[in-house]
Amino acid sequence: MFSFEVLHEDKNTGARVGRITTSHGIIDTPVFMPVGTQGTVKTMTPEELGEIGVQAVLANTYHLSLRPGYPIIEAAGGLHRFMHWDRPILTDSGGYQIFSMAKLRQVSEDGVEFQSHFDGSRRFFTPGDIVRMQEILGADIMMVLDECTSYPCSYEDARKSMKLTSLWAEKSKAVYKNNGQALFGIVQGNFYPDLREESSRALVELDFPGYALGGVSVGEDRSMRQKVVDETVPFLPEGKPRYLMGVGDPEDIVGTVERGIDMFDCVLPTRNARSGCIFTRNGRMSIRNSKYRDQFIPLDEKCDCYTCRNYTRAYLHHLFRCREILGLRLNTWHNLHFINSLMKEMRESILQDRFAEYKQDFLRCYKEPGSSLAFEHAGEKSLSSNG
Amino acid sequence: MFSFEVLHEDKNTGARVGRITTSHGIIDTPVFMPVGTQGTVKTMTPEELGEIGVQAVLANTYHLSLRPGYPIIEAAGGLHRFMHWDRPILTDSGGYQIFSMAKLRQVSEDGVEFQSHFDGSRRFFTPGDIVRMQEILGADIMMVLDECTSYPCSYEDARKSMKLTSLWAEKSKAVYKNNGQALFGIVQGNFYPDLREESSRALVELDFPGYALGGVSVGEDRSMRQKVVDETVPFLPEGKPRYLMGVGDPEDIVGTVERGIDMFDCVLPTRNARSGCIFTRNGRMSIRNSKYRDQFIPLDEKCDCYTCRNYTRAYLHHLFRCREILGLRLNTWHNLHFINSLMKEMRESILQDRFAEYKQDFLRCYKEPGSSLAFEHAGEKSLSSNG
Repeated sequence: MFSFEVLHEDKNTGARVGRITTSHGIIDTPVFMPVGTQGTVKTMTPEELGEIGVQAVLANTYHLSLRPGYPIIEAAGGLHRFMHWDRPILTDSGGYQIFSMAKLRQVSEDGVEFQSHFDGSRRFFTPGDIVRMQEILGADIMMVLDECTSYPCSYEDARKSMKLTSLWAEKSKAVYKNNGQALFGIVQGNFYPDLREESSRALVELDFPGYALGGVSVGEDRSMRQKVVDETVPFLPEGKPRYLMGVGDPEDIVGTVERGIDMFDCVLPTRNARSGCIFTRNGRMSIRNSKYRDQFIPLDEKCDCYTCRNYTRAYLHHLFRCREILGLRLNTWHNLHFINSLMKEMRESILQDRFAEYKQDFLRCYKEPGSSLAFEHAGEKSLSSNG
Repeated sequence: MFSFEVLHEDKNTGARVGRITTSHGIIDTPVFMPVGTQGTVKTMTPEELGEIGVQAVLANTYHLSLRPGYPIIEAAGGLHRFMHWDRPILTDSGGYQIFSMAKLRQVSEDGVEFQSHFDGSRRFFTPGDIVRMQEILGADIMMVLDECTSYPCSYEDARKSMKLTSLWAEKSKAVYKNNGQALFGIVQGNFYPDLREESSRALVELDFPGYALGGVSVGEDRSMRQKVVDETVPFLPEGKPRYLMGVGDPEDIVGTVERGIDMFDCVLPTRNARSGCIFTRNGRMSIRNSKYRDQFIPLDEKCDCYTCRNYTRAYLHHLFRCREILGLRLNTWHNLHFINSLMKEMRESILQDRFAEYKQDFLRCYKEPGSSLAFEHAGEKSLSSNG
């Protein structure tokens, strides 16, 4: 059981509101999915994610296949039961992780051989293995194995890699059982428009239930990311969800929802939280800054999350200085609430055909030069990764 | 507002049930108070502590006076508001920490000069300063500054130190405002019965609202700990609470409740949890043990805590191996629930005059030689600290 329906298209932009139906419930799009690589969204319980309104989480096939190993999760009755999360799960194929974390990779048309970054053991995964593992994990949305190129990358390398990804997609589709779990294709082609087009056409030919844009957030700037979306979306079917992988910066999200993206995932809100970088309507703030030590107001006075309802900046600053785990939890709670509220507000504005106005208001406030928080942004270069 | 009432004394042992009333609520005794040194019980929210049934937490004057500094907490409106906890707080004076963590100590009748372990700054605290800081923090129960001796310790050193602690207690009492916050005296004297008696008599002379037994859990064995309790309790008034500082091992708790102790605190349940050491009715278990990787049952099948209701040993083993923060939270939740349930069951058994029977049943199950968990205990020497 998997379906997608576009409920409304904004009259003035490419933004749209949709609904994904899975056997573990509904996902309203545009959606942001927090990352739970190892079968847990770092620091949070499933109940807390539910309280925030999170409708789907990500997990990672590469990580889970190495630790605890998919037979353990199979014996547990699937990933939902294992991690005590009864709403939709999307599993990433692990392509990105194999190419960024594993060692001694050997890629062929058959699949990828690599050395586990945990224990050094040799592994070989075919595209079909990756689909079967995700079927066993019980993911509601599965991703094909893809090869992810870095930036910059030569045209020839990008082309070769994209061709391999397309071939793997075909092999994945061939073993895919379509028994209620959706399998998404992943568009590659680096930042070359004709390769993105070719990749999209090849995948659409295979008729996947959804399409992801992979290979972004690899070091390029925001305008290039938006350009890739502009150059890919026209080749994807209207009636299928479009997923921009690894993107979670608020400005990126707003800018690509405008261009027709329906789904996002990123470690940014959770990882930033753990390093003390907080999202607010007035931009980012770093709670480690000593100026917060005696500010007895919430992180964001307009926010109604658990953290903002109950704790002050002064306390969160204290917890961060003391490296207390509660601080990591409270920051994460706030950042996920922030992104989730952003998605909800975007959906509402799209339904009312005022997305362009919403976007303008949001960005003006988020980057306002007069805001003391915006100034802080400049000093946080190490935290402002978009990946 | 502070009062203590003995509600029932067990007919066959020294165990008793009482009730402490503070301006932030009631504490049923015997009570175990989780440690929140820096103004947070590690990994837990106040709501979660409330769900477990925790009635009071500890915080530390030494730590909080150095970081964030008591003026910050004063400006926040007191420690309760700062940390979002509206039930009773007991603050330790920091005596133990000054003698175990700070450097370059110089002790005199006037107080203690030391170097902060955070920033190396020189500090000088008089016994009166320590009382005033705790008044500012807004603690419901405050502790006098004491000097804590180690084990072993010569008679002469123990005597000199005990005399200093008594003098400091007198100075503390002299500045104590008695405006609703209770100040407890701390009995010292190392493991010398006559010094414990002398210390007790000197403190009782000063008429404190409660009395602590300090200087235990410093490396001595369990029987010595019980002996100190036996040799001190007779010199303390019936109608005042008796607090055994730094003790939290289940067997120690059961063995000293039997001897008339009303209050306990210890980092053990929370610290053990973070190192994967779990309390169950059948003894301790180490969740890092690989035999749990495919056990799809709760930590303790008779436990109804959040962790045991929703997660398996296999998942907790996975989280621990992955160093996931959620694992630390779930282990902590369980261990605090375990200790809190133990206290509750002890109170019930005392009210029914069957404490001796309860103790026997508990210990038999906890140490049962036939239990697979009890065997594990032997391999966990590094985790089995009682302090």
